[in-house]
Amino acid sequence: MRLVQFQAPHLMGPHLGLESGNGGGVINLNAFDPTLPKTMMEFLEQGEATLSVARRALAAQLPVLPRSEVTFLAPVTRPDKVVCVGMNYVDHCKEQNVPVPKEPIIFSKFASSIVGPYDEVILPPESQEVDWEVELAVVIGKKGKRIKATDAMAHVAGFTVAHDVSARDWQMRRNGKQWLLGKTFDTFCPLGPALVTKDSIADPHNLKICCRVNGEVVQSSNTNQMVFKTEELIAWVSQFVTLYPGDIILTGTPPGVGVFRKPPVFLKKGDEVQCEIEELGIIINKVV
Amino acid sequence: MRLVQFQAPHLMGPHLGLESGNGGGVINLNAFDPTLPKTMMEFLEQGEATLSVARRALAAQLPVLPRSEVTFLAPVTRPDKVVCVGMNYVDHCKEQNVPVPKEPIIFSKFASSIVGPYDEVILPPESQEVDWEVELAVVIGKKGKRIKATDAMAHVAGFTVAHDVSARDWQMRRNGKQWLLGKTFDTFCPLGPALVTKDSIADPHNLKICCRVNGEVVQSSNTNQMVFKTEELIAWVSQFVTLYPGDIILTGTPPGVGVFRKPPVFLKKGDEVQCEIEELGIIINKVV
Repeated sequence: MRLVQFQAPHLMGPHLGLESGNGGGVINLNAFDPTLPKTMMEFLEQGEATLSVARRALAAQLPVLPRSEVTFLAPVTRPDKVVCVGMNYVDHCKEQNVPVPKEPIIFSKFASSIVGPYDEVILPPESQEVDWEVELAVVIGKKGKRIKATDAMAHVAGFTVAHDVSARDWQMRRNGKQWLLGKTFDTFCPLGPALVTKDSIADPHNLKICCRVNGEVVQSSNTNQMVFKTEELIAWVSQFVTLYPGDIILTGTPPGVGVFRKPPVFLKKGDEVQCEIEELGIIINKVV
Repeated sequence: MRLVQFQAPHLMGPHLGLESGNGGGVINLNAFDPTLPKTMMEFLEQGEATLSVARRALAAQLPVLPRSEVTFLAPVTRPDKVVCVGMNYVDHCKEQNVPVPKEPIIFSKFASSIVGPYDEVILPPESQEVDWEVELAVVIGKKGKRIKATDAMAHVAGFTVAHDVSARDWQMRRNGKQWLLGKTFDTFCPLGPALVTKDSIADPHNLKICCRVNGEVVQSSNTNQMVFKTEELIAWVSQFVTLYPGDIILTGTPPGVGVFRKPPVFLKKGDEVQCEIEELGIIINKVV
């Protein structure tokens, strides 16, 4: 299933829906069952109960709102955590000429940086070095602490596409070299278009992953290049913190970011960034 | 006013209340007005409307639940952000022999690390160097972006006491020197006992601040030693991110932490840490 949060002119406020296939229209889950919550956070907190309603809706041949009539929101908004992983692609480590990490490197964004799959990314006047990073994002579906890698997939609701927009000046040279500020400007975390449930993906660790800027391919790899896979990341992070439904883990980016080009290239007003992951979909964000 | 979140055996789930003075009993705000929300996040989101109800309750000579009959929760739970400031006391910079920062250094904890004012701090087996840090915490009351320092206090709901528990090994030597993991283990952010509204504090930047471990004073300073005060911190952070009601800013710690002692001293099972700020109150957390 491809779960979405959306708005439409004839509906009051955000609604939950199902994308009818990658790039398709939207089925209104709240119209199918008015007792369903209207936010993905609450939907995920109710676990299998709400998922089974969504499965019934998918089977029920419901009306599909054309894509042109809906506004897609991020599939999850206001999660407790946006966990990020640094240097987690073998080929991205080679690009930087740094050794592959022996342990995951964890940093974070604030949830306030999340925007929808087709929203604008705002270039802040405080940074001259805003860069792209396409990433596979894991969405947690079940609370857990000290989760074993072998149990980890039971805690995953599904996957989505993330753009880990990064202000390199703030990440690498300012703020005492703590990455947070450079990663968490408002609009620096486009997500979507759908939370694709894990049962709908053949293998999350064998998906083509790609970023295009103004149509030119700048990152092109495969999630099989990830150093630490979903299961290991969940086991690692849940040693430190309790994971909650809706928590998001951005699993790192492949090579091809702007800062390591010679000369470096950064985003400018008017650019259009497309982040695409096989089976999951594509998010398109204009830089303004 | 001293706003609290609490539970009591005769009440279902968390409630909002008023502490009847520093160390006093609790007035049940939800009993006074059943239309009030039961969480501080929702209470703060409603702004002046709910604050004025609380003011009426305080004037109404309501029954006071004895302190022994209630369990105090953190005054704010599940905020969008827990923003933290590093090296923000002049005397704490001297202790480390580092220059006073020219800009605030910002890092974060996940909201999942928040616990109540008398809850236990759990020593994780992953760290051998867990340290104390008493801090003044600002609670945001009104949404804002690019807030001017001169307007900042209009965005503050009030202040509370925080314990920024810190695993120095993870903060300083592991995780690619990103501080997040060392700061965000579960239970590493005790808060409380009350959100003291700004109108109830003579001057938040002239309060004695103190930490005791097993009764011995280990930190003792005054919030007048802060490098960047509340107004400047709000102006700085809101350049990067939109601040929302309930967001918490931990404003840094004075000198006397364990890691800079010779030899270093760290917390061990059975220790009791008291963090106290004049006018705000005291939080007491046993280390287990």
